[in-house]
Amino acid sequence: MIQIFTTGGTIDKVYFDANSEFEIGESLIPELLTESNIHDGYAIHDLMRKDSLQLTDTDREAIREAVVGSAAGQILIAHGTDTMAETAQALSAITDKTIVLLGAMQPARMRRSDAVFNLGFAWSAVQLLPAGIYIAMNGEVFEAGAVRKNLKAQRFERI
Amino acid sequence: MIQIFTTGGTIDKVYFDANSEFEIGESLIPELLTESNIHDGYAIHDLMRKDSLQLTDTDREAIREAVVGSAAGQILIAHGTDTMAETAQALSAITDKTIVLLGAMQPARMRRSDAVFNLGFAWSAVQLLPAGIYIAMNGEVFEAGAVRKNLKAQRFERI
Amino acid sequence: MIQIFTTGGTIDKVYFDANSEFEIGESLIPELLTESNIHDGYAIHDLMRKDSLQLTDTDREAIREAVVGSAAGQILIAHGTDTMAETAQALSAITDKTIVLLGAMQPARMRRSDAVFNLGFAWSAVQLLPAGIYIAMNGEVFEAGAVRKNLKAQRFERI
Amino acid sequence: MIQIFTTGGTIDKVYFDANSEFEIGESLIPELLTESNIHDGYAIHDLMRKDSLQLTDTDREAIREAVVGSAAGQILIAHGTDTMAETAQALSAITDKTIVLLGAMQPARMRRSDAVFNLGFAWSAVQLLPAGIYIAMNGEVFEAGAVRKNLKAQRFERI
Repeated sequence: MIQIFTTGGTIDKVYFDANSEFEIGESLIPELLTESNIHDGYAIHDLMRKDSLQLTDTDREAIREAVVGSAAGQILIAHGTDTMAETAQALSAITDKTIVLLGAMQPARMRRSDAVFNLGFAWSAVQLLPAGIYIAMNGEVFEAGAVRKNLKAQRFERI
Repeated sequence: MIQIFTTGGTIDKVYFDANSEFEIGESLIPELLTESNIHDGYAIHDLMRKDSLQLTDTDREAIREAVVGSAAGQILIAHGTDTMAETAQALSAITDKTIVLLGAMQPARMRRSDAVFNLGFAWSAVQLLPAGIYIAMNGEVFEAGAVRKNLKAQRFERI
Repeated sequence: MIQIFTTGGTIDKVYFDANSEFEIGESLIPELLTESNIHDGYAIHDLMRKDSLQLTDTDREAIREAVVGSAAGQILIAHGTDTMAETAQALSAITDKTIVLLGAMQPARMRRSDAVFNLGFAWSAVQLLPAGIYIAMNGEVFEAGAVRKNLKAQRFERI
Repeated sequence: MIQIFTTGGTIDKVYFDANSEFEIGESLIPELLTESNIHDGYAIHDLMRKDSLQLTDTDREAIREAVVGSAAGQILIAHGTDTMAETAQALSAITDKTIVLLGAMQPARMRRSDAVFNLGFAWSAVQLLPAGIYIAMNGEVFEAGAVRKNLKAQRFERI
């Protein structure tokens, strides 16, 4: 059983015309999984709906507690890309689960997006990787503590 | 470097109004990879454009030769789902590469499709699995020789 | 009130993997109207699900009867493009309603399709045109009896 | 020949991850027309890229001048929905052209959007309506001076 925790991020942004702006909405992940012919074998829980630049230490502690308290050994965390590396670091003491953070540069609700590919990529990574904390972005697996988001290049890279 | 071979299958079907039907067209995989923020690290080669029910022993031998002749150690094969298990078996003697067969139940060109998820899933699997032949469908990894397509359930399952 | 009759055609083709082919499915038009912020002011009725090359005189008579029997003064008919001109001719004796035939070269369920544009185009045409029979395709309005589908160019044109 | 002027608005908003927000980008209208099987018969010119709440009297004068200076008798103006009615009023002295303002509640680049339907709807309206200034939204044609955007209901309505 894969446990999915959603925390917000670009991946689940929705455009609200009334406010002339996007806001993080209900996660599209269940709908994307159904479209991808995956109907069971997972549970999903929405922890918060925040742009990752707004995540606080309290938020990261809440994420950590949710992960530690889950019975699942395979955990996916949907997360904004800007501080994904920081949250990965905050989870690094957890040694008995495979935890993969995923996100997207373009909202899943766009016609052209990396969201669905990233979800599929992470779905495989969380099943195949040994226990540890990982970031799965731009088609690569990165280990927590050895990765950063390169803002200029708009990609994740090893450090 | 990931080597992609395309052989046809539902994943790359295109609708041709002139013929009132779907036919296999140019692979959409490069476009999907670009949308998913993947711009290098792979090569793609179109071997054939066949519905997998039409693949012959000669076709499977051509696929096998292409795989064996590739310098890449990680190989993705886009393939029709109907006889994916047969082709996987035909490759089973190859022991020094990680080979993942992927396909889709709905063409990648549809608004709702499992194609992009499957591509992301396979992209991760081919990087993480040890040498061997695998099928990556409906969010699971199957080993060649131990999998079949359940036509009624429209899913792949272990045997 | 706009009355919509669906008769089949490419616009509502669905891909069925089990049969390795497309078939005409439930009309996507209600879903497309909802996505386009149109929630009322119309009724929709499925008359048949046929490729227009398979429409018979009996089918065309059934379409004619449905149109004549409708209380609506504005009627849209979703129809395959191949024999749209023939069906338009079969309705030409009806002088007290605005009837617009629409279809698509690519199924509405494809990522790239003319279906939604054509639906919007026809939605306006049926409200603005005087009583008569029309075909609305490739961004133009054609009068019944003065139009044909140019198979080579894959467009409708005046004759 | 239909002349299209783009001025910005939700319809052409793009998501920029670097800024964590949506901004108005290059108009998607030419790509949407191509997907809709329309390849000629129009010219398109980008006047500005503004959210319509930011349009000034100077901007509206620039729009008016562009319309008056165009040789075309049929003009489409892509525009933000918030002040579409105001711009329509600013053009009301022009009596020798058919001018239709169109926009969208969801960016054209979203998977679910009213943009393509609205474009098709306006494409027909500008060809069929007599000279005058109109707003084409939520599947209806409104005359300038007799329409407003109902923010609560998120629709345009007659006044």
